[in-house]
Amino acid sequence: MNLLLLEEADFIAADRVVLRDRRLTHMQEVHRVAVGDSLRVGRIGGLMGRAEVLHLEAGEAQLQVSLDQPPPTKLPLTLILALPRPKMLRRVLQTIATMGVPKLVLVNSYRVEKSFWQTPFLEPEAIREQLILGLEQTRDTVLPEVIIEKRFKPFVEDRLPTISADTLGLVGHPGSYPACPRAVDAPVTLAIGPEGGWIPYEIDLLGKSGLQPVQLGERILRVETAVTALLARLF
Amino acid sequence: MNLLLLEEADFIAADRVVLRDRRLTHMQEVHRVAVGDSLRVGRIGGLMGRAEVLHLEAGEAQLQVSLDQPPPTKLPLTLILALPRPKMLRRVLQTIATMGVPKLVLVNSYRVEKSFWQTPFLEPEAIREQLILGLEQTRDTVLPEVIIEKRFKPFVEDRLPTISADTLGLVGHPGSYPACPRAVDAPVTLAIGPEGGWIPYEIDLLGKSGLQPVQLGERILRVETAVTALLARLF
Repeated sequence: MNLLLLEEADFIAADRVVLRDRRLTHMQEVHRVAVGDSLRVGRIGGLMGRAEVLHLEAGEAQLQVSLDQPPPTKLPLTLILALPRPKMLRRVLQTIATMGVPKLVLVNSYRVEKSFWQTPFLEPEAIREQLILGLEQTRDTVLPEVIIEKRFKPFVEDRLPTISADTLGLVGHPGSYPACPRAVDAPVTLAIGPEGGWIPYEIDLLGKSGLQPVQLGERILRVETAVTALLARLF
Repeated sequence: MNLLLLEEADFIAADRVVLRDRRLTHMQEVHRVAVGDSLRVGRIGGLMGRAEVLHLEAGEAQLQVSLDQPPPTKLPLTLILALPRPKMLRRVLQTIATMGVPKLVLVNSYRVEKSFWQTPFLEPEAIREQLILGLEQTRDTVLPEVIIEKRFKPFVEDRLPTISADTLGLVGHPGSYPACPRAVDAPVTLAIGPEGGWIPYEIDLLGKSGLQPVQLGERILRVETAVTALLARLF
């Protein structure tokens, strides 16, 4: 945790918060803070700054907060991801929050196992928990927007064209396609497939909605690694 | 598992292998292979190709092997990594094998917790297990070389200059340094620090041995993400 994120409900005054949950445990057990210590904090969706520990007890900490720095800018990107398997989903949510993705669409694909849609990790609270971990890691306060699209065709045909309009539309896909471009100077819409890749019908439909295939070489990366590698190349 | 890796001990003839371990379980439970099916295989350290299932029983499979393709090329890189915490170490070993890193040096640093050096995940067999998983993911047969350097100063002063000679020497480090270069056309020696980063003394010593700091922006990435992001930018 490189940034302690404060929720609205933590504030008991404009510059005063009370913490009682895992963040208190983390402060005490990992950072071993004492009264008078100063910590990096951020208000969810708002500014970042520092907090001084005013009181500290077993079950509660009170901090005086001073927020004056904007969070880092996000990438100019909408990321579309075929729903990964549940364990990978949690890691990917952290990763996209860490990398500064502002908007993630989780979409169905022919090679997504149906059972993946049943995971409790898709509950809003479970998604938020992983995003918060990513923001704490990277020092950011703004939660990415996560949209769930259980049906591929209506999403790609009806809603994707609006998303991809005036952006560089790309699909990460192995094969004899152009290499993924580097250091692009435009907003991007990027789709990344499931393990085993998109099927030709899906590539076709994504293409009609403005997303063209690009490749990263012959190695087959796990989804989390592919996301990081593609974003590091693009931006 | 995108490639079934064959060990020397599996071969009962030049073109015939017998499998009995987790690879057999995986073939049966995940790929649900039957006699006559063809699988992608590779010989550790050697060629890749296909194998046909000749016999299949509960505890044993016999495959006829035909190997004719070279594995993918590795990156022109020596990666130096401050020893990550054990759980991250396992993931990083998979990641570097997946990304095509040929040589990894795990080194001590001031901010590496001493207890990390006690982990059983540093045993040669445990390291090999993770590397194999990475090779199976990416379809490669050549195990990266992993070197363990428990003392920072003798490694950096005595052995690093030889490693970094005639390479682009870089240290991933946050701060007001040049941005990490893109698509370099030279062999690289890259050092990545622990959580919390290198200390100034270490940056200084790495610099004297030919490694100059470069940064990836203000976001603080986990080690695994930083490795992937830096390699995707550099190559």
